[in-house]
Amino acid sequence: MAEAVGRRGQQGGGQGGRHGGRHGGRHGGRAGAKERRGSAVIEQMPWNPPVNIDRPTEPLDEEGVAAIHDGAVRILEEIGIEFLNPEAVEILQQAGCKVSGENVRMDRDFVMEWIAHAPSQFTLTPRNPDRQITIGGRNLVFGNVSSPPNYWDMSLGRKMPGTRAQCQDLLRLTQYLNCIHFAGGYPVEPVDVHASVRHLDVLFDKLTLTDKVMHAYSLGKERVEDVMEMVRIAGGLSHAEFDASPRMYTNINSTSPLKHDRPMLDGWMRLARRGQGLVVTPFTLAGAMAPVTMAGAVAQSLAEALCAVVLAQIIRPGAPCAIGTFTSNVDMKSGAPAFGTPEYMRATQMTGQLCRFYGLPMRSSGVCAANVPDGQAMWETSNSLWAAVQSGTNMVYHAAGWLEGGLIASPEKFIMDCEVLQQIQRYMQPEICATGPDEIALDAIRTVGPNGHFFGIEHTQDRYLEAFYQPFLSDWKNYEAWEAAGAVWTPERAHHMFREILASFEPPPMDPAIREELSDFVARRKIEGGAPTDF
Amino acid sequence: MAEAVGRRGQQGGGQGGRHGGRHGGRHGGRAGAKERRGSAVIEQMPWNPPVNIDRPTEPLDEEGVAAIHDGAVRILEEIGIEFLNPEAVEILQQAGCKVSGENVRMDRDFVMEWIAHAPSQFTLTPRNPDRQITIGGRNLVFGNVSSPPNYWDMSLGRKMPGTRAQCQDLLRLTQYLNCIHFAGGYPVEPVDVHASVRHLDVLFDKLTLTDKVMHAYSLGKERVEDVMEMVRIAGGLSHAEFDASPRMYTNINSTSPLKHDRPMLDGWMRLARRGQGLVVTPFTLAGAMAPVTMAGAVAQSLAEALCAVVLAQIIRPGAPCAIGTFTSNVDMKSGAPAFGTPEYMRATQMTGQLCRFYGLPMRSSGVCAANVPDGQAMWETSNSLWAAVQSGTNMVYHAAGWLEGGLIASPEKFIMDCEVLQQIQRYMQPEICATGPDEIALDAIRTVGPNGHFFGIEHTQDRYLEAFYQPFLSDWKNYEAWEAAGAVWTPERAHHMFREILASFEPPPMDPAIREELSDFVARRKIEGGAPTDF
Repeated sequence: MAEAVGRRGQQGGGQGGRHGGRHGGRHGGRAGAKERRGSAVIEQMPWNPPVNIDRPTEPLDEEGVAAIHDGAVRILEEIGIEFLNPEAVEILQQAGCKVSGENVRMDRDFVMEWIAHAPSQFTLTPRNPDRQITIGGRNLVFGNVSSPPNYWDMSLGRKMPGTRAQCQDLLRLTQYLNCIHFAGGYPVEPVDVHASVRHLDVLFDKLTLTDKVMHAYSLGKERVEDVMEMVRIAGGLSHAEFDASPRMYTNINSTSPLKHDRPMLDGWMRLARRGQGLVVTPFTLAGAMAPVTMAGAVAQSLAEALCAVVLAQIIRPGAPCAIGTFTSNVDMKSGAPAFGTPEYMRATQMTGQLCRFYGLPMRSSGVCAANVPDGQAMWETSNSLWAAVQSGTNMVYHAAGWLEGGLIASPEKFIMDCEVLQQIQRYMQPEICATGPDEIALDAIRTVGPNGHFFGIEHTQDRYLEAFYQPFLSDWKNYEAWEAAGAVWTPERAHHMFREILASFEPPPMDPAIREELSDFVARRKIEGGAPTDF
Repeated sequence: MAEAVGRRGQQGGGQGGRHGGRHGGRHGGRAGAKERRGSAVIEQMPWNPPVNIDRPTEPLDEEGVAAIHDGAVRILEEIGIEFLNPEAVEILQQAGCKVSGENVRMDRDFVMEWIAHAPSQFTLTPRNPDRQITIGGRNLVFGNVSSPPNYWDMSLGRKMPGTRAQCQDLLRLTQYLNCIHFAGGYPVEPVDVHASVRHLDVLFDKLTLTDKVMHAYSLGKERVEDVMEMVRIAGGLSHAEFDASPRMYTNINSTSPLKHDRPMLDGWMRLARRGQGLVVTPFTLAGAMAPVTMAGAVAQSLAEALCAVVLAQIIRPGAPCAIGTFTSNVDMKSGAPAFGTPEYMRATQMTGQLCRFYGLPMRSSGVCAANVPDGQAMWETSNSLWAAVQSGTNMVYHAAGWLEGGLIASPEKFIMDCEVLQQIQRYMQPEICATGPDEIALDAIRTVGPNGHFFGIEHTQDRYLEAFYQPFLSDWKNYEAWEAAGAVWTPERAHHMFREILASFEPPPMDPAIREELSDFVARRKIEGGAPTDF
């Protein structure tokens, strides 16, 4: 399927038109494949966000779900959450919450009534409407790694603070790879750009280098307002059009335990008012910011998330919200965070059960603790990605490119992760498991009999181009052929591919007038001083 | 849990007694951990084969299951399977099958009646009864890589034909690592030992270096009889005791499409007569030895497996049988086999559904196409291992150490895979998802409040030693600490661990009289010429 569809030149991003088209015969072989590939760097599956056809893995029985729900709402009823934002406190108090200073408590009925206003799914429409994504239901979308302060690649061979150039390169990967469905936060923090104007430069880069869904950091009103305005301009939208449906989203993290900070809440409320996407992801490391027991950590995480959803619904009933999970644990020997572990997987699955209980879309992540893109990185990341799938997650953050517990962004890891993501995308295609008479293939089996093979028969010839997953990074050569080709290990292959993608990259088209308007906006806001840096 | 249980000195293999015991305080930190570790090379979870608590992933609806079953039995009814063994043909004919030369056909009712005699689960008891494993139900056991002709390790840096010394080293890993529950085929083929006596030398090594469940290759009567006799001697059993319950097993592969060969059937029948374990695993690569459509490949695989189970049940009703799957596909570009792909995962899950339909235990595998223990190796292997879990597999072959589609055994990959296996073992512990009041931990959350942390509180202190998975190979240090420790990538760390395990390895105890009897048996059989090599 992958290969055949790729041949039709349906690759996403700016690469589609450069695709080699329908050269090459039906008979495979690497030479033919190379010819077919034309000038495209990699033959990937087309843009096609997967629909999760599997029943979720559910470690909790009904009682377990009820116990965690009860824990979450008792936290909200009896202990309360601190909202370090007077405006938020005021809104919640007026709606009927019990307020004591910054502590806000709310009854379970109140919580359930308000969250019932939140849609069970919603769309996010970027400047290219073909890249619209749906958050909720059985939809599953993947985003790039977000917010690492540092960068690492094979040629560099060391960790260094991120730069704008590296951020741009990772945005090119975000755009180029069709299995990345949204542009999350900055794929690496460009520390060489002053914090007051960083959001302007990076958003300009994001909006011109990609045409996928955008994210805004909720770090003070100026940044949030600037990003909304830039997304509006890039989409060629009126203010009313922008407000009419979600065009972008923010993700906020509670300051666990039991706190929401001022700038995050500010951004949350601004996007809520304008009907944009809202994701709240408590960062509850069990044993540190949450109970050492996973159910307790999940309950606390949900409490912190639910009250933010309540706030959004009070501000704008029906505001599109999703609950995120980032519940893992610290290594009790070293204090280091652990990622992609059995506890992480189970916490993700449990959160999925509760998100379905609440009828809210869910976000989780692709994560690892490994420092380099090696075997450990891939088993930890695989564990977390499959847990996302099993949990019924809708939105997978950091799905590609994350190392060192999120402190490093790596282009090699980005491409390696995309091979796994594309396999998940293929895995969700129901035709793999089709069981009609043509698939049971009794006639083919009869024809071949006990002494033949299936290579040459019509049943195979009619189907082989679309029958199987075609990797872009995996090397399936035997050892001798692999050795003859230079004995290149996976991260080196990924590095080479990274360079090739950059060399051939063409940004998605943008109306020059819009580009100029964006550019002018950035220039004007820089003259005005950008945003405060004391958030 | 891992760490704490490890501290109780319950490690398996010959290492248990050398374990450091209860040194070290409750407060973690790496120094403390090192101290506790004592002289054991790695701190691993104890022997404890997991029970799969998850509901299987089921891509087929009822109709799909019925369609594949119908395909499988129609192959048996209408097309037939070639049994290249006159004795087997005779047995099947006498039981009522339609025979035409080597072609044997059987009705679906006949198939269903006979396979109903096979138990839904059975035990395999090796010479150390504490290492008994159960095949079937929700039980999940892992075995070492089996049968690669070649060996690769980091210090060698190249592929070479296997030797007995390498085979012994991999057997030491098989014994040492508690998450390996049975000794499959030869972990690498010792090509330096003549084929006529290879089974004698390797079985001697297997029986003296490990005390886990044994496998016999069904490669002619001499080998099978020799292995049964050696397993009997090693267990200190009478012939009657040996016959009374399964002490070992064989795995046969059909010669797809639609054939069972003579020596495999011979071994199958010999073990059936003596009530030993029987696993039949068709090797159906879709597009080559089976239809290009996965449902067809699965149906054919099941047909080939079911008729072998029927044969065993006719010979000895109640003979312990399991159905294996090895359905993957060839890369239609290169003809190379693909492993751990989306199609592989779905075929494994579909087979799982049919095994439950038939009420038979299931075997699948941990596989990859990668040539070296890198990222690709781990995402392919992770995919296949999680597919095994999701399919409800009971017995995972090749669960550790496999590279290059099974052509290479690698000790580094062995240890890396065991880190994944141990995580699966931990993942299946229901206490991770416990939701009692102590786990919801409302009081702990109340105590800590919005400004504290959970490190120091009693709820954490009481639980942290057993709360979380402790890896033995994963490096969770931050980048700087990892760099200061030599910037060692995963396969290098695994190689170092391999050397350490070998250096400290102590074989499991064996009565010297039994060892001598085994040794005498090998010597005698060598004088007799061993086994023919013209199978």
